[in-house]
Amino acid sequence: MNVADLNIIYILDLVGTFTFAVSGALAAAEKRFDLFGALFVGFVTAVGGGTTRDIILGLTPVFWIEDINYLLVIVTAVLFVFLFIRKAFEFPRLLLFFDAIGIGVFTLIGIEKSRAVSILPVFAILMGVLTAVMGGILRDVFSRKVPLIFKREIYATACLIGGIVFFALLFFRLDKTIIYIITMLLIISIRLVSIRFGWQLPTLTTQKEGKG
Amino acid sequence: MNVADLNIIYILDLVGTFTFAVSGALAAAEKRFDLFGALFVGFVTAVGGGTTRDIILGLTPVFWIEDINYLLVIVTAVLFVFLFIRKAFEFPRLLLFFDAIGIGVFTLIGIEKSRAVSILPVFAILMGVLTAVMGGILRDVFSRKVPLIFKREIYATACLIGGIVFFALLFFRLDKTIIYIITMLLIISIRLVSIRFGWQLPTLTTQKEGKG
Amino acid sequence: MNVADLNIIYILDLVGTFTFAVSGALAAAEKRFDLFGALFVGFVTAVGGGTTRDIILGLTPVFWIEDINYLLVIVTAVLFVFLFIRKAFEFPRLLLFFDAIGIGVFTLIGIEKSRAVSILPVFAILMGVLTAVMGGILRDVFSRKVPLIFKREIYATACLIGGIVFFALLFFRLDKTIIYIITMLLIISIRLVSIRFGWQLPTLTTQKEGKG
Repeated sequence: MNVADLNIIYILDLVGTFTFAVSGALAAAEKRFDLFGALFVGFVTAVGGGTTRDIILGLTPVFWIEDINYLLVIVTAVLFVFLFIRKAFEFPRLLLFFDAIGIGVFTLIGIEKSRAVSILPVFAILMGVLTAVMGGILRDVFSRKVPLIFKREIYATACLIGGIVFFALLFFRLDKTIIYIITMLLIISIRLVSIRFGWQLPTLTTQKEGKG
Repeated sequence: MNVADLNIIYILDLVGTFTFAVSGALAAAEKRFDLFGALFVGFVTAVGGGTTRDIILGLTPVFWIEDINYLLVIVTAVLFVFLFIRKAFEFPRLLLFFDAIGIGVFTLIGIEKSRAVSILPVFAILMGVLTAVMGGILRDVFSRKVPLIFKREIYATACLIGGIVFFALLFFRLDKTIIYIITMLLIISIRLVSIRFGWQLPTLTTQKEGKG
Repeated sequence: MNVADLNIIYILDLVGTFTFAVSGALAAAEKRFDLFGALFVGFVTAVGGGTTRDIILGLTPVFWIEDINYLLVIVTAVLFVFLFIRKAFEFPRLLLFFDAIGIGVFTLIGIEKSRAVSILPVFAILMGVLTAVMGGILRDVFSRKVPLIFKREIYATACLIGGIVFFALLFFRLDKTIIYIITMLLIISIRLVSIRFGWQLPTLTTQKEGKG
C-alpha cells in the first residue's frame, strides 16, 4: 500500500501544503512583493521540499505535476492571505500548530517515497528531513529573509528523531498504520514542546563569548 | 512538427537567450563581479528557466547540452557587455524590447516542450511561465539583487495570459503557426503596453497604509 | 576503467569533500547558524557541485545516495569545526591548500562522469568547472555571504584550463593515469600560484574609474 493512498495522510499532506503556502505568502507580504511574487514564494515554500527530493532521487516529472490538488490548495492559500492578511497574523499559534503537522507528514511521505527507490535507511531519513525543511529554506532564499531555520529552534531535529524512530519501529515489524501515527505524532510533539520551552541547538561561533 | 524545428522560433529563441545573457551580465557588472561571475550570471539568466523546466519534467540531459549554439550566444553576449558596457546601457528601451521577445518565445517553447510529455494544460501553462521568468529570478538570487520581478510590472502575467490564449486557440483547431504567432505577439504586446502605462499587480502588505 | 575506481582519485575526492564541508561549516559559524545550519551548509558546499552536475545530466539518484562515505566525511568535518573551531581558523593556508586539491579532483571527476554520457568535450569541461565551483556558490547563497568566487581570484579559470589540457592530452593518446595526474597538478598549481601572486580576472563595472 502506497503511503499517499492513505486518505488521512493525503488530507494531512494538503493541510501541510496549505500552511506552508500561507507561510510563504506572509514572507512575500513582509517584503511587499506583488501577487505574482506571493504566488511564487508560496508555491516554492509548499512544494520546494518534495520537489528537491524527487529531483535528487530521479522521480520526475515531480509529484505535483500528477495531481492538480496541490496547485489548487496553494493558490487558495495565497489568495486567502491576500484577502484576509490581518486574519492570518492574528493566529500565529495556529500557524505554528499546522506547520508542525506539515513537517510531520512531509517527513513521513519523504521517507516512504525514498524507501520505494530502495536506498539506505540513513538516506531515506535524510530525504524525509529534506522534504520537511527545504521549502522553508528556499522561501528564505527567494524572499531574502534571514534563514530562521538555521538559527532558531528544534525543527529539522524533530524530523530527524521521527525518521530514526520510524525505522526502529519498522525493525520491530509493527503495523504500518501504527508506525505512521507514532512517527507523525512524535515529530509534531517534539516541535511543539520545543517551541513551548524555547529549546535550541548549540550554535557555532567564530567570536569568543566574553561574558556568560 | 517540433516547435524548435521552426526556423523563426529557433532564431527568436537565440535572440531571447542573447538578451537574457546581456541582462545577467549587466547585473554582474553592477555588483562588480569579474569575468567569470559575469559568465556565470549571464548563463544562469539565459538558460535558468528552461533548465528548471527540463529538470522538473525529467527531460535530462537538459536542452543546452544538445546544442552548442546556446553556449556560443551567451558567451558572445557577455563578452559584448564586457567590451561595450556603456553601449549596453545606452539602449535600455532596446533591451526591454528584446526582453519582451524573449519571454514571448520562452513561454511558447516551455508550453510546447511540456505538452510533449502529456501533462495537464494548466501545468503546461505553468511550465511556460516558469521558462520565461525563472532565469530572471535566479539572476537576482545569484547577484543578490532585490528580485524586481516580484515587485514591478506585469511580467509573469503577460506569459500567463499568453498561455491561456494558446490553449483556447488550440481548442478551436487553428493552424499551429497562427497560434504560435498570436501567442507570442500577445505576450510581447501586453508586456510592452504594461511598461508604457506603468501597469502593476496589487501588492500584499503587512502594514496598514495610513494615508491614501 | 571508471575514474572513481582509482583509489587515489577516490581518496582525494573524499579529501576535497572534507575540505569543502569545513569551508561550509566555517561560513555557517560566521553567520552564527546552529548545528543543523552548519550541517546543511557544509553538506551543500561539499556535494552541491556534483549534485548539480548529476541533475543536469540526468544521472539520478545522485552520486552521494550510492555511497555513504560522502555523508560520513561531511558530518565528521562539520563536527570537527564545531569542536575545534579555533583550530580551523589557525590554518587558513592549509585550508586553501586542501581546497585547491578539492577543485582539482572535482574538475577531473566532473569531466569523466560527463564523458560517460557522451556529450561534446566543451560541455564536459563546463561540467567539470561546475562540479568544482557550484558548491562554493551555493554555500554563499544559503549563508547569504557575498559570493567571493565572483570577485576574487583565479578559481574557475584554473579548472577551465585544466579541463582544456585534459582533452588536449587525450587527443595525443597519453596514458589515462598520466592525464589524470597532469590535469590535477595543473589545476592545483594554477590555483596556488594565483593566490601567491594575487592574480585576478578583469572586472566589469558600470562606473567610470576616475583615477588610476
